[in-house]
Amino acid sequence: MSRVQVLLVAGTHGNELNAPWLFSQWSHKEDLIKNNGISLSRVIGNQAALESCKRYIDRDLNRSFTSELLEARTSNQKEVIRAQELVSIYGPLGNKPCQIAIDFHSTTSSMGTCLVIYGRRPADLALASLIQSRIGIPIYLHEGDQIQNGFLVECWPCGLVVEIGPVAQGLLNEKIVEQTKLSLEICLEAISKLISGESVYPKEVIIHRHLQNIDFPRDINGMQKSYIHRDIQNKDWLPINYGDSLFQSVGGEIIKNKLINTVYPVFINEAAYIEKNIAMSFTEREVWNFNPTWAEELKKLL
Amino acid sequence: MSRVQVLLVAGTHGNELNAPWLFSQWSHKEDLIKNNGISLSRVIGNQAALESCKRYIDRDLNRSFTSELLEARTSNQKEVIRAQELVSIYGPLGNKPCQIAIDFHSTTSSMGTCLVIYGRRPADLALASLIQSRIGIPIYLHEGDQIQNGFLVECWPCGLVVEIGPVAQGLLNEKIVEQTKLSLEICLEAISKLISGESVYPKEVIIHRHLQNIDFPRDINGMQKSYIHRDIQNKDWLPINYGDSLFQSVGGEIIKNKLINTVYPVFINEAAYIEKNIAMSFTEREVWNFNPTWAEELKKLL
Repeated sequence: MSRVQVLLVAGTHGNELNAPWLFSQWSHKEDLIKNNGISLSRVIGNQAALESCKRYIDRDLNRSFTSELLEARTSNQKEVIRAQELVSIYGPLGNKPCQIAIDFHSTTSSMGTCLVIYGRRPADLALASLIQSRIGIPIYLHEGDQIQNGFLVECWPCGLVVEIGPVAQGLLNEKIVEQTKLSLEICLEAISKLISGESVYPKEVIIHRHLQNIDFPRDINGMQKSYIHRDIQNKDWLPINYGDSLFQSVGGEIIKNKLINTVYPVFINEAAYIEKNIAMSFTEREVWNFNPTWAEELKKLL
Repeated sequence: MSRVQVLLVAGTHGNELNAPWLFSQWSHKEDLIKNNGISLSRVIGNQAALESCKRYIDRDLNRSFTSELLEARTSNQKEVIRAQELVSIYGPLGNKPCQIAIDFHSTTSSMGTCLVIYGRRPADLALASLIQSRIGIPIYLHEGDQIQNGFLVECWPCGLVVEIGPVAQGLLNEKIVEQTKLSLEICLEAISKLISGESVYPKEVIIHRHLQNIDFPRDINGMQKSYIHRDIQNKDWLPINYGDSLFQSVGGEIIKNKLINTVYPVFINEAAYIEKNIAMSFTEREVWNFNPTWAEELKKLL
């Protein structure tokens, strides 16, 4: 039997209810989700925020895993304390060390089910490739984004975010719960096959590589003066070409895309990103050859 | 020229951004919306909540217009103070008295555009009938609901809520902004025709009369144990018959409707109603003959 211990996290953001609710149902009925014999630790990321149905109390927990904050001796911020606590318990050097972390989120954007990975860590790429080859979901490679860092899963040797939408904040939705359950089962199945040596890696993996964040058009006072154009609302992952409409003002003024190369938008109109001045992010769609060293790195964790 | 003054309210709930944003765009560009020569007062209901992107700060402003709260000598609650202020300025006996109030909301439910009236006030029924006969939108008659009262528009001699969805809280959406703009223009057009004596009342009006609120199924700890069944999610206004599925647990248990008579659900899975223990409300669809006395009551306000 493998020594691998998998950390499953829900409710890292307290107004994303579907995954934490699924976890609570699962705790009442242990056979609700097949664990495939894998040793699991299940946690609610931000219980205080969940009880208040807020994304966070003092600061975004999923931007609080920077080395600076994790090393801060004293902090009054609930999420900094919680980040330190999670790492000290479940981190690779913790009391109950986990090697793989999977963090379940939801979004108001029409992202369907997708994976998010942070940087090009071989083990992440290997596990994400296995999941993509099983159910074909997109992988968003988040990298080179100056204003966003300190993500939870970065503190584990292998870590993925599962992101599912659209759903409004603060709501349970049948589709989202079912998609969360399915993606959770697929992740556990993939890890189970890894352990038993039955994994078959794909030859290629499709990566949506982060290019840049796009803010809303703003007036001289910084106020948002346009909304997402109807042509692209709910059209995450679909190509945007030169001259395509991005934003529209209520008076009819249209802002068009000026990039020559085709881009693929993600997190279009995510409610939580308004405070981060992100209307959407552009990605480049790339087909990468699977690199066998990724699999070797992942195997080392087992 | 009529003496009638119309109060337009947006942002009564601070996380419903579309109407307040439309108002702000309108204030920058006065010809954005035709006012048809009507004297208007435009206000943001709850500016403090809007700035925090929360429904409210201390309590729901749109449940704070009870006579008890309006008469309270001292209150620490921001919304009680604001309700008193709005009535003292724009109420029928205020410094800038308005006779008609229209309050623009959004919902996470798939309500489309609809009107909500509170009780059977003749002037409300007359104005709602005119708007329904012009664009066919449903009218939800909210009455006999013990746990919900103190709505803003009840403090004006004639008052309607315009409710539009679905849209997540905290988001601008092109469709919702456009629907808000259109419904606002239709309201002002209807009032303009009233003033000029060109109104043609319909013979009948279709009313969705409130019957009861339905809570989610709960376990012995009071925790929500099922979600809205997929058959009715996003199916506001569509009939529910005996035996139709209402809720489903993640384990597959289905809760069915036990009412013999056909009902019509509204506010299915409205995020803000979870704290009020309302999963949806049932209504009865009725066709009422238009009563000419309604028109007389409305005319008295002009």
